[in-house]
Amino acid sequence: MKISIVGKGNVGSHLYNAFKEKFDTTLIDSRNPQNLNPSDIAIVCVKDDAIKEVVQNLKGKARIIAHTSGSLPMEILNSYSTDYGVFYPLQTFTKNVDLCYHNIPFFIEGNNQHTVEVLRELANAISGKVKECSSEERKKLHLSAVFACNFSNALFTVAHKLLDSADISFDMLLPLIKQTVDKLDKLSPEAAQTGPAVRNDSFIISRHLEMLQNEPKLAEIYRLITELIRDNSRNPVIK
Amino acid sequence: MKISIVGKGNVGSHLYNAFKEKFDTTLIDSRNPQNLNPSDIAIVCVKDDAIKEVVQNLKGKARIIAHTSGSLPMEILNSYSTDYGVFYPLQTFTKNVDLCYHNIPFFIEGNNQHTVEVLRELANAISGKVKECSSEERKKLHLSAVFACNFSNALFTVAHKLLDSADISFDMLLPLIKQTVDKLDKLSPEAAQTGPAVRNDSFIISRHLEMLQNEPKLAEIYRLITELIRDNSRNPVIK
Repeated sequence: MKISIVGKGNVGSHLYNAFKEKFDTTLIDSRNPQNLNPSDIAIVCVKDDAIKEVVQNLKGKARIIAHTSGSLPMEILNSYSTDYGVFYPLQTFTKNVDLCYHNIPFFIEGNNQHTVEVLRELANAISGKVKECSSEERKKLHLSAVFACNFSNALFTVAHKLLDSADISFDMLLPLIKQTVDKLDKLSPEAAQTGPAVRNDSFIISRHLEMLQNEPKLAEIYRLITELIRDNSRNPVIK
Repeated sequence: MKISIVGKGNVGSHLYNAFKEKFDTTLIDSRNPQNLNPSDIAIVCVKDDAIKEVVQNLKGKARIIAHTSGSLPMEILNSYSTDYGVFYPLQTFTKNVDLCYHNIPFFIEGNNQHTVEVLRELANAISGKVKECSSEERKKLHLSAVFACNFSNALFTVAHKLLDSADISFDMLLPLIKQTVDKLDKLSPEAAQTGPAVRNDSFIISRHLEMLQNEPKLAEIYRLITELIRDNSRNPVIK
């Protein structure tokens, strides 16, 4: 199978590295797709708002065209190829940070059975976690990743600033953050919840809100997440 | 040195295990402190609102009395002993979940130099990360831990519910969550921030808010944390 990876950014570079020893793989600059020889599949690894322009130039050069976006529907590709799909790796890619691809979940979608099978073969070649998933489901998956990863990182930034003001290094908090995540191997996040909100410790909660009185946005985030934890502990998800 | 650990909950049990091979240590039921023989130090490991009642019964039985609360000032102990302090381990303790004590940061505070030195000796015996810290600083530390750990766990719960509605297992998100935290070994959370908010992708953000239109609390949390990320990327902390 001949694969073209289109786009030399973080996702493209990582996918190229993962594929190059297993398939006849070429990495293509998305701004110079004229170098593209005919291939069985082109996997487009560019920013969401650049996808349409890039796939325009791929017409007729690849049997299957797939994008790698978490949030865009498969159907945005329907006028560029008869076979099209999505090849979405659920991971945050940073150049020069090595990843164990085998643990990265891949979510695939195709407009026909053949496309799904090709995408599944590619994903299975590098990952142990491959799942077919509709565009609607993928949107929810992407939103869940924003909450769990982008937004929790924003809370780590809040913690960093609070610690700076007490002259304590952020590193001191890392063992606790790691333990919070390690617990999820054994417990659901609902069962793992600790802290003043879940034990309904109104005294501590009001002292914390006092400390945030000059930071109205942080105070509001504190109030809302505290309510959310209280709501969840009253209506737990039964698994 | 004779140590009494008062309170058989999660913190007390873990501290007892950590100390018992290095010091003459006794674990005492906080409801039956009459079993307490005179000791050099009593470390009180009970809930914040039970501390005063418990230390009342310790008067005269220990040279030093220390509590383990993240949020209560040291001075709540000032009428129960001439030597008093705080011995605060920054970790989430779960019974039957083993911990590597050496990596747990301990924050200590004493009302005089002798007390600080005893607390430092105890903390150094089990941990490689010991720091003296005032009650004011400890309050900020505790608040930062609530944001970084309790609240990020609440966001994992949000993700869990969203994934349930797409019939995707929460386990699929764990590699991404772990990578989000592993990045903090090398990058500050500000530098590690990814996602639609930091790249100012208004199209995705408005689609996400649409998906949350029946969940007003989640939509408001989404809006506020997105604003926070945008504010931070405009005013980064220079380290």
